[in-house]
Amino acid sequence: MAEGLVTPAQNDFSAAERSAMYRAIRERRDVRTGYLPQPIGDDTLYRLLVAAHQAPSVGFMQPWRFIVVREEGLRRSVHGIFERANADAAVRHRGDRQALYLRLKLEGLLEAPQNLCVLCNDESERGHHLGRESMPETSIYSVVCAIQNLWLAARTEGIGVGWVSILDPLAIKNLLRIPANTRLVAYLCLGYVRGFSDVPDLERDGWEQRAELSAFVHADYFDQPYATDRR
Amino acid sequence: MAEGLVTPAQNDFSAAERSAMYRAIRERRDVRTGYLPQPIGDDTLYRLLVAAHQAPSVGFMQPWRFIVVREEGLRRSVHGIFERANADAAVRHRGDRQALYLRLKLEGLLEAPQNLCVLCNDESERGHHLGRESMPETSIYSVVCAIQNLWLAARTEGIGVGWVSILDPLAIKNLLRIPANTRLVAYLCLGYVRGFSDVPDLERDGWEQRAELSAFVHADYFDQPYATDRR
Repeated sequence: MAEGLVTPAQNDFSAAERSAMYRAIRERRDVRTGYLPQPIGDDTLYRLLVAAHQAPSVGFMQPWRFIVVREEGLRRSVHGIFERANADAAVRHRGDRQALYLRLKLEGLLEAPQNLCVLCNDESERGHHLGRESMPETSIYSVVCAIQNLWLAARTEGIGVGWVSILDPLAIKNLLRIPANTRLVAYLCLGYVRGFSDVPDLERDGWEQRAELSAFVHADYFDQPYATDRR
Repeated sequence: MAEGLVTPAQNDFSAAERSAMYRAIRERRDVRTGYLPQPIGDDTLYRLLVAAHQAPSVGFMQPWRFIVVREEGLRRSVHGIFERANADAAVRHRGDRQALYLRLKLEGLLEAPQNLCVLCNDESERGHHLGRESMPETSIYSVVCAIQNLWLAARTEGIGVGWVSILDPLAIKNLLRIPANTRLVAYLCLGYVRGFSDVPDLERDGWEQRAELSAFVHADYFDQPYATDRR
């Protein structure tokens, strides 16, 4: 259908603002290298956390919790936890794939002067369970929305974010004195960076190729492809 | 610490671009009312899906799958699935809280001319399991990051998004012929809207109050508050 007919007068974002959003989305990267030693100022860091706090949440539950980890000894301990999980993961691969795996740089825990541990308080009564009777997992999904808000806002501040999932969540919880009933959702590296890669590191390093979107879009039913020639 | 010292020359986003991002984050809403009847053009809809497809994903797995649901009969069936789950949820509340629950408008499935069902292909071998040995749930989290990308991009296009979690995922999967091994992560309403509320509907309608961020931020350990006077 003709695009000119459907843009409503109600859209109050300018073309420039829209472009900025698409640019941040396109140029956001998972950063594992090139962190700079200067710490993020408290004002800037809090601005990122406010952006996270403005995420959608099921039932307006706002179940996210954050630990800013700056202390170097703690980050060294987290790095040790990563190294054990990474060694376990490496042995799952064989031959050339294993050699490639061992060459990848998968975290910046020590280079980034601050880490951010992101948690979900599943047991909070905030929101009065609205939206969670049928899909209780949406409390965790709300926390992930908050992470993506922070990630995109960080990109516009020149701050890189790297998500480290190669670790034992229970070991991190013990280290940071996180209660048993609070779920570890993500452990992030955060910091100013020398620059942002043109393409994802795992694409550049030959670990995985970019998939075509068109194969992933369906129309009305899962077994019906979305006709991309309609575009 | 002084903010002036830490902003690196490498930040290539302008102040206006940064403001646009924070504005979209601040003004994004979960929309349940006020959808306009004109459909989203295919070019615009695809632009939103490309934004989703540019999300971070564990191991560059890109596990998201999308079904654009425009057919009215299907949306009516989904609405019926919502109504059953909503009736089940309503009886969990008592007295004034139940009366308030029953007054809430929690979905725009029929008003929004298009719905979007968002799935996760957990079993894809893309990414060669990198990052998923220790935290397999990160494949689903990648899909949620894609949803948040789409949600923010939509806001800058004047397009509202509403996430409906009050439904039986299995019933939706049967209706849309989604394979058993593919996980339903979200069912969204999508459409141009009359406007965006100043505050979340659930806050305006008195369901839940906004939480203070400061109570949710900790320093180094979960039992240590983040000193907000450092800001």
